[in-house]
Amino acid sequence: MSIDYVVKSAEKIKNMEVRGAGRIAKFCAKVLMEYAMEIKKNFDEEMKKAAEILLNTRPTAVSLYNSIYYVMDYSGESDEEKRESLVKRAKEFIEWVDTAQKEIGRIGSRRIKSGSTILTHCNSASALSVIKEAYRKGKDIEVFATESRPRYQGHLTAKELSAEGIPVTLIVDSAVRYFIREIDYVIVGADAITVNGSLVNKIGTSQIALIAKEARVPFMVAAETYKFSPKTLLGESIVIEERDPAEVAPEELRSLVKIRNPAFDITPRHYIDLIITEIGAIPPEMAYLVIKERLGYRLLGEDELKLSVHHYD
Amino acid sequence: MSIDYVVKSAEKIKNMEVRGAGRIAKFCAKVLMEYAMEIKKNFDEEMKKAAEILLNTRPTAVSLYNSIYYVMDYSGESDEEKRESLVKRAKEFIEWVDTAQKEIGRIGSRRIKSGSTILTHCNSASALSVIKEAYRKGKDIEVFATESRPRYQGHLTAKELSAEGIPVTLIVDSAVRYFIREIDYVIVGADAITVNGSLVNKIGTSQIALIAKEARVPFMVAAETYKFSPKTLLGESIVIEERDPAEVAPEELRSLVKIRNPAFDITPRHYIDLIITEIGAIPPEMAYLVIKERLGYRLLGEDELKLSVHHYD
Amino acid sequence: MSIDYVVKSAEKIKNMEVRGAGRIAKFCAKVLMEYAMEIKKNFDEEMKKAAEILLNTRPTAVSLYNSIYYVMDYSGESDEEKRESLVKRAKEFIEWVDTAQKEIGRIGSRRIKSGSTILTHCNSASALSVIKEAYRKGKDIEVFATESRPRYQGHLTAKELSAEGIPVTLIVDSAVRYFIREIDYVIVGADAITVNGSLVNKIGTSQIALIAKEARVPFMVAAETYKFSPKTLLGESIVIEERDPAEVAPEELRSLVKIRNPAFDITPRHYIDLIITEIGAIPPEMAYLVIKERLGYRLLGEDELKLSVHHYD
Amino acid sequence: MSIDYVVKSAEKIKNMEVRGAGRIAKFCAKVLMEYAMEIKKNFDEEMKKAAEILLNTRPTAVSLYNSIYYVMDYSGESDEEKRESLVKRAKEFIEWVDTAQKEIGRIGSRRIKSGSTILTHCNSASALSVIKEAYRKGKDIEVFATESRPRYQGHLTAKELSAEGIPVTLIVDSAVRYFIREIDYVIVGADAITVNGSLVNKIGTSQIALIAKEARVPFMVAAETYKFSPKTLLGESIVIEERDPAEVAPEELRSLVKIRNPAFDITPRHYIDLIITEIGAIPPEMAYLVIKERLGYRLLGEDELKLSVHHYD
Amino acid sequence: MSIDYVVKSAEKIKNMEVRGAGRIAKFCAKVLMEYAMEIKKNFDEEMKKAAEILLNTRPTAVSLYNSIYYVMDYSGESDEEKRESLVKRAKEFIEWVDTAQKEIGRIGSRRIKSGSTILTHCNSASALSVIKEAYRKGKDIEVFATESRPRYQGHLTAKELSAEGIPVTLIVDSAVRYFIREIDYVIVGADAITVNGSLVNKIGTSQIALIAKEARVPFMVAAETYKFSPKTLLGESIVIEERDPAEVAPEELRSLVKIRNPAFDITPRHYIDLIITEIGAIPPEMAYLVIKERLGYRLLGEDELKLSVHHYD
Amino acid sequence: MSIDYVVKSAEKIKNMEVRGAGRIAKFCAKVLMEYAMEIKKNFDEEMKKAAEILLNTRPTAVSLYNSIYYVMDYSGESDEEKRESLVKRAKEFIEWVDTAQKEIGRIGSRRIKSGSTILTHCNSASALSVIKEAYRKGKDIEVFATESRPRYQGHLTAKELSAEGIPVTLIVDSAVRYFIREIDYVIVGADAITVNGSLVNKIGTSQIALIAKEARVPFMVAAETYKFSPKTLLGESIVIEERDPAEVAPEELRSLVKIRNPAFDITPRHYIDLIITEIGAIPPEMAYLVIKERLGYRLLGEDELKLSVHHYD
Repeated sequence: MSIDYVVKSAEKIKNMEVRGAGRIAKFCAKVLMEYAMEIKKNFDEEMKKAAEILLNTRPTAVSLYNSIYYVMDYSGESDEEKRESLVKRAKEFIEWVDTAQKEIGRIGSRRIKSGSTILTHCNSASALSVIKEAYRKGKDIEVFATESRPRYQGHLTAKELSAEGIPVTLIVDSAVRYFIREIDYVIVGADAITVNGSLVNKIGTSQIALIAKEARVPFMVAAETYKFSPKTLLGESIVIEERDPAEVAPEELRSLVKIRNPAFDITPRHYIDLIITEIGAIPPEMAYLVIKERLGYRLLGEDELKLSVHHYD
Repeated sequence: MSIDYVVKSAEKIKNMEVRGAGRIAKFCAKVLMEYAMEIKKNFDEEMKKAAEILLNTRPTAVSLYNSIYYVMDYSGESDEEKRESLVKRAKEFIEWVDTAQKEIGRIGSRRIKSGSTILTHCNSASALSVIKEAYRKGKDIEVFATESRPRYQGHLTAKELSAEGIPVTLIVDSAVRYFIREIDYVIVGADAITVNGSLVNKIGTSQIALIAKEARVPFMVAAETYKFSPKTLLGESIVIEERDPAEVAPEELRSLVKIRNPAFDITPRHYIDLIITEIGAIPPEMAYLVIKERLGYRLLGEDELKLSVHHYD
Repeated sequence: MSIDYVVKSAEKIKNMEVRGAGRIAKFCAKVLMEYAMEIKKNFDEEMKKAAEILLNTRPTAVSLYNSIYYVMDYSGESDEEKRESLVKRAKEFIEWVDTAQKEIGRIGSRRIKSGSTILTHCNSASALSVIKEAYRKGKDIEVFATESRPRYQGHLTAKELSAEGIPVTLIVDSAVRYFIREIDYVIVGADAITVNGSLVNKIGTSQIALIAKEARVPFMVAAETYKFSPKTLLGESIVIEERDPAEVAPEELRSLVKIRNPAFDITPRHYIDLIITEIGAIPPEMAYLVIKERLGYRLLGEDELKLSVHHYD
Repeated sequence: MSIDYVVKSAEKIKNMEVRGAGRIAKFCAKVLMEYAMEIKKNFDEEMKKAAEILLNTRPTAVSLYNSIYYVMDYSGESDEEKRESLVKRAKEFIEWVDTAQKEIGRIGSRRIKSGSTILTHCNSASALSVIKEAYRKGKDIEVFATESRPRYQGHLTAKELSAEGIPVTLIVDSAVRYFIREIDYVIVGADAITVNGSLVNKIGTSQIALIAKEARVPFMVAAETYKFSPKTLLGESIVIEERDPAEVAPEELRSLVKIRNPAFDITPRHYIDLIITEIGAIPPEMAYLVIKERLGYRLLGEDELKLSVHHYD
Repeated sequence: MSIDYVVKSAEKIKNMEVRGAGRIAKFCAKVLMEYAMEIKKNFDEEMKKAAEILLNTRPTAVSLYNSIYYVMDYSGESDEEKRESLVKRAKEFIEWVDTAQKEIGRIGSRRIKSGSTILTHCNSASALSVIKEAYRKGKDIEVFATESRPRYQGHLTAKELSAEGIPVTLIVDSAVRYFIREIDYVIVGADAITVNGSLVNKIGTSQIALIAKEARVPFMVAAETYKFSPKTLLGESIVIEERDPAEVAPEELRSLVKIRNPAFDITPRHYIDLIITEIGAIPPEMAYLVIKERLGYRLLGEDELKLSVHHYD
Repeated sequence: MSIDYVVKSAEKIKNMEVRGAGRIAKFCAKVLMEYAMEIKKNFDEEMKKAAEILLNTRPTAVSLYNSIYYVMDYSGESDEEKRESLVKRAKEFIEWVDTAQKEIGRIGSRRIKSGSTILTHCNSASALSVIKEAYRKGKDIEVFATESRPRYQGHLTAKELSAEGIPVTLIVDSAVRYFIREIDYVIVGADAITVNGSLVNKIGTSQIALIAKEARVPFMVAAETYKFSPKTLLGESIVIEERDPAEVAPEELRSLVKIRNPAFDITPRHYIDLIITEIGAIPPEMAYLVIKERLGYRLLGEDELKLSVHHYD
């Protein structure tokens, strides 16, 4: 196995063959682990090369960054020790991802009262984990799902929940304020959580949060801790990717007008009641602590970013 | 010409052959006028019958109601005098509709500063009249148009404005909060204005207003005074029609989940800076006065609703 | 019948034998009318004396002021003409009071949707008129009543509504925010409405309005137009009466601590969705117009207050 | 007396020899009246010429516009009748200005409770009229005056009030939020009131209003009705004049950096509790009515602006 | 001493013989300690049994939970070592409770400026400790106490403070918004603090917090750290107990209408300026850290709840 | 070198010869270090004396307090060991101050997007460090500087930034709300940060934060961690110093009216998006953690304040 294996794997992330925050993160850990097991010499150098290849596939994906950073934080004197340490860390990280979602379901479901109606946006595995677990525990709940333009992930959500037997109502994204007073909780997932507790999530999330706030409806986020972004502690802003205009309008229109298609938006901490993570339900302001304690982030006076410091200056 | 003519005309409104607030209103005035010109005897009785037929086509359409009510407020001793009075009123009303939109464009365009960016939602002729007039006056403006699910009227808006040469950016409805800080004004149309200054308009309008308020962006409404609802003065709520689920999702999904598809929502007066009408730019709280003075609405101690009092108890 | 009759009648208002905004207003109109019918000479002078006696019984009661002011606005050359004019006005005023409440019920009940839950505070005949009328029309409604310390008028409300068959839940005044998300409308009465649309009502009303605003629950006021305060147009503030400390705490405590027992508080117009009057449902900002048009209030350049100008400087 | 007299008079306004909203308005009325009395022939034409000369001196000054418009609304068949009508109107207008401020003091002072502390900004004769009248009535009050950069009009206010014996505390404009919880009322004047109840006043006013709102301190405006802007009903925005940079910084700095020195800012109606005018204390939303009824403004279907229609298209 | 002693002690908690968060907590620690000292064999098993008996007396009482959890977190190999460890922990916990309140008084009193007026709700020993300590230090303060329906604990507060010489004003719960602008600080106690900084306290607290926020009055909470709820970190919601309807209304009414009598409500972190604990004045968002560091709460991958895991799934 | 050296050094702080948070802090560390190196005997006693002298120069200056407290936290058995420990700590502290500002520039500059406009208030080295670093990195930015009455530090800011080549616009403090919609970020410095995340900074800062919040403009603070105030954890309020009235108005006015000239005001955490420190960009709620971990603050059960406990009771 040569570095080609890493390059090909990276390709799979780039071309979206491997997608989803959790799946990407595990995939990277696995690739690094497998590559580590094959390396004959220059362990540090080789691993660093591999890590950088993976890191550059989607430089804005927080879970990818956290995965690589976690796995690469190995120690040891000899190459053998280093390899062992790295493999151990990769397995730990994969285990982390595997258990987090279920744990979030377990913790979050406790917040849901029987008889309540929940609104969700887009199609977040973690958010749905909370809803399904509540339903499985016998709670009588109902769900409103937004269609989530432009990619209609709300259709997936609607199918997935109704397959479980949960009554679902589908609405257009514009109808949230109209229905909000019938809603008891909003629960969404996260693409990233910044150091000051802002939520980066599917476009439209921040206006749902605002609408919920206006009507005093609790707004909760389900987010694995590997979604928390260490770079934001260093002042980095989360980059909001703009996607293909073809998702929004047909060619005929695209030739006439400009299309803007941001994938995410940012919800400030003041609109978030609670973030449900696998380590507990926490207020968004605790993001700093999660980054510091959970993601082992080191600060002042240290070599901040082993792998790609050039990203930061 | 018998009452059949009225019945057939009413059919055209019901089956949406005649549609749009202004067009419906003018059509009713014309039908009543034409019928009045044919009536041989029992003028009052016959006209009342005709009016009721038309009124029942779309009992929630404010402009239809205002048209009929205005035309039917004729006076005179003899049938001839009554006919003359009715015809005069019908012509006045048609003139009113014909000139209002242009006047709104003239008044509203004065508020637009050159160099500014305007957001609009759905496809309102009055709102676009303001934008186009500003552009024609040589103001350098740009427009963001929401796609306006489920019927994508934003596409019409985008085409219509870009045909005029105005630069347009099309976004999904969920992206309004993301872009709002680049926006200088929001301008939308109205389906109805209630007595306490609430705006009834295309689903999604109220959340755009909320988003504009949060970011201190002026939110303006372009509305002809025949959109103001006299019935709300009597305590009637505006009924929000729910449209065909097929507009929202394909059959496959509709069989699994419930679809809710309200056509309009309600924006409270606190989120509205100004309503631009053909009689001037007014604060939303003035709706009462418009209803009272402009729509000739009479109150306490009078026969409130000549035509269809049964709607009210 | 001498002026003694007026003095004795005034006594009945002072000692609370005659109480309630509507009853006091009618009583004054009746006394003035009766006295007018007896006067032999010096009509103006005598009537003015009578009016002042009545006015001074409860100088802060708006309905009393409006009653006297309305009745005293008679015209005529001879004493006979004046008497006739005054009697006519007195009868008009009494009729006004008699019909207003019922009309408010009729108008307000249209706003109530079947299946909704209404919160009310204190024991307002007008507010209850709305609720009862909605129920009589067959709407399926439920009511939360606050107990309304210190005088527990909420107990009267609870009994009155449950006697009609309406399901009532009684709560302490402190529990409003706890339950507000179960509430669809708040409806309260009014002691007075000021020129800028503020509501003067039972202590606790303004905090309920604030709580309703925070949760986007519509807050409606039921108020006869004779509750609108013309004096506030002249800059007068409504005086908030403080009642007997014995209403709040037993002697034992009163000897130890100070008791403050304001009867009313003031709710700003921004927290009020609608005022339901007998002349229609209006936004609070229309108070000025009601005062000007309905209460015949004259301004600049005129003799502002015929009866008791000394109150104003 | 030829048109030169008008030209010279106009010059006095331009070069600020005549200044202050009230004084300018009276001066224009007087000049028009005097010129009218001299005209030998072509009355309409001559007067129109004179009016336009005056109108163009400060096209953004609302009181000047209202003065000229009011005076020029004369009627009559013969030149003699027109002259008489014009002179009568000019005198009326002058009387209006002369009495308005005192009346505002009389009305506004009733709102001030003894023992209270008032904050004022800049140096408004109307606002000070309220404060002084309250003090003269024996109310025990205290005033905080902002210095009102860049021209320090707060120093004038401080001197003027302390000359009356009123205790004054002077603070920098930045200290308003620091002290606001010690304040019972904010009272400011107005340069203009727009149709939707916005206040145009000395730069800094809108942030004081925001600060007052945040702390629930009543914010009141003292404004003569000739400060209300009819043009805004037609969609015109108030133009915010930018003054000489030399008011802000010395030459040394002006050569290095850009200076922006707007004279006014705009306070939205939601931050205003009450406008005290000479015709009563009104909510800001009533601006429309004042413009319509008090300033005789005519709308749709009429020759909107006799004098200078070219300003509007 | 057999398990009967524990059962009898539990009974005292159930029947309210032992009441108050602090007293209950200490009582449990003492009972566990005493029972531990008597156990002859099967230490773990016996103690677990005892702990569960106590835990089930009031499963929603946070301090009871924290007490038992703290004491039961003993270690050791032999029964003797375990007993010793348990006894040490019980004593520590009792010491904690004994000193916390005084420390809170010491810390909180520093925030109170002389000359200020404080509002408090219900009868919290910790909140009163702050007030009394401030007074004892010579600060000139005044207190407004709400009566705190339905149980009138405000009467106790009024007596307790006036016995110290502090001037007290008693008001009904509905009068808070009326008086809030005379208030410099609100200080209340806590029944529980959740992981995201929400305050669970006497019904009415959350509306006072909202009223304070509206008027920019600082809202402070005095809470011992054993009031912080570890279970909420796991997603558990605080259960709001509803008390006997007889507290609210007499039998006569209870037979006619439903009574709802929730004991507590929930104040969100955004309305709280500061929580004064015995370990310092902290922002409410720090609740997570207090729970984690102070209450030794362990998360993911551990046996979360030794004693009664069945509560959680 | 005797204690006189310390006294003289203290004098330099008192008379403002040494000024600025960072410079004062370093100066104290240096003086303590130098004094420590000279002491022959009674090390603890002598050092404590020196520390108290310095501490009393400006008891409200947070950085001075943190400096002395940090340096005095030495350990060791013998005087020699203590001296060594103290010197090491003093050097560490000086290094801390020296590097913090640069690091803040590095971290904060990452948040600034090219093409943006930044508002700053007063003249904060840390805030300017962020702006300059962003500019040096090639970002195309523009700055609005408030003049910052009464001492016009905005002039310094304007000169300093324009010397770097950054385009600057200078405005009066009252014009912030007028221009805020043209602003992309507000960045200010800090005099102190309290335990609950409040910012103590130049008078006017809190109203700028409020204005930014109203318009959804991010408000960021640049603050070295030695600006965080440990005393506030103990309930101490930050004392707001009032400066010389002569800064505000000339003698002529000062003899007539009272001048209030507070140097700072307090911005609540809800208005702050982020604090940029040398250890990362953190939410304001993390102040507690910074105080606890970074400033080594110890709590309950310890000797809280070695040097000057008398300040606390």
